[in-house]
Amino acid sequence: MENELFAFIERYMPLTEEEKAMLRGMPLFKHFKKGEVFLQEGDVSDKQFFVLKGCVRCFYWVGAEEKTTDFYTELQSVVPRQASPAGKVGYNLACVEDSILLVGTADMEQELFASFPRFEKLCRLLTEQLLSQSHTALDTFKTTSAEQRYRHLLTTRPGLVQRVPLLQLASYLGVRPESLSRIRRRIAKEGSVATAKPV
Amino acid sequence: MENELFAFIERYMPLTEEEKAMLRGMPLFKHFKKGEVFLQEGDVSDKQFFVLKGCVRCFYWVGAEEKTTDFYTELQSVVPRQASPAGKVGYNLACVEDSILLVGTADMEQELFASFPRFEKLCRLLTEQLLSQSHTALDTFKTTSAEQRYRHLLTTRPGLVQRVPLLQLASYLGVRPESLSRIRRRIAKEGSVATAKPV
Repeated sequence: MENELFAFIERYMPLTEEEKAMLRGMPLFKHFKKGEVFLQEGDVSDKQFFVLKGCVRCFYWVGAEEKTTDFYTELQSVVPRQASPAGKVGYNLACVEDSILLVGTADMEQELFASFPRFEKLCRLLTEQLLSQSHTALDTFKTTSAEQRYRHLLTTRPGLVQRVPLLQLASYLGVRPESLSRIRRRIAKEGSVATAKPV
Repeated sequence: MENELFAFIERYMPLTEEEKAMLRGMPLFKHFKKGEVFLQEGDVSDKQFFVLKGCVRCFYWVGAEEKTTDFYTELQSVVPRQASPAGKVGYNLACVEDSILLVGTADMEQELFASFPRFEKLCRLLTEQLLSQSHTALDTFKTTSAEQRYRHLLTTRPGLVQRVPLLQLASYLGVRPESLSRIRRRIAKEGSVATAKPV
């Protein structure tokens, strides 16, 4: 998994051998099983997660119902949400598949920044990128219909639709499962019409 | 406006006289009129905005309809959204009131970081804070009803409700204006019942 991590970082800045050695020496990688809930509402945690392999889902309990708000797959950071003043998180994180995550803490981050200050610049740039993505996602959710969101997902993250259960996907898109099934049938029909056209 | 800016920064780190002098020397503050649209869909811009006084609205054109997605008031950063690959923004920013904004560019930021590297740490911390707020807002929008969102707004940003037109507020909350009026009447009634109780 180190090579995947190094390749990701090197999209932004080349790493020296010394930096690679430091990263190799940190206990960064953790394996999780499919279905495992590794962060729960009420936990006090300063951990940060980055997906190297697999799929992580963020969800909330609303009454007896789970509401899925996000999926994170390969080379995505699990964006931390605001905690309560007592430091408790209000959400849950679970693995949709067997997953390998990079798990960092505030202490590890400080250690890294102290030894290699340019990691702080990298973190700022990555955080700025995540912020603009996150806010764009919020705006998109507010200004589009569920069908538009699903079509957008098919374009931007086509693999995701195959990897997660319909119920969770519907919740994530803000639509009832039966409506999502209808949307899917409509799109499949368009596809078969489109395929048929040239014949 | 300098004092407001300095006080805001000093929530996070005390400023030296040298740093204050550098900030004073930069052409940071700009005045905008109520109704002025100062960033439009299709503009290429690397500008960043921070509200010192007034109220800024982010909105999109969806067909012939304006959809408001955000309001920014005193001491809030206008979060930049993702631009197109050609650098064009897909949203509009307008002033709901006469406003004074801090307007920064990437070049100004670089100049500041080069002279005072610890501003980079401050920017990282502020961006991390904005990111967790932004993602919490997205989750909240996905997991709550419009009435819950309005009640949350009354608790967290009570002044805002008085400052922005109903039509824009309804759009921001993802609800039709007539539904928002109904929600308001219901809450007002509860309030008068609550007030009446002790009598």
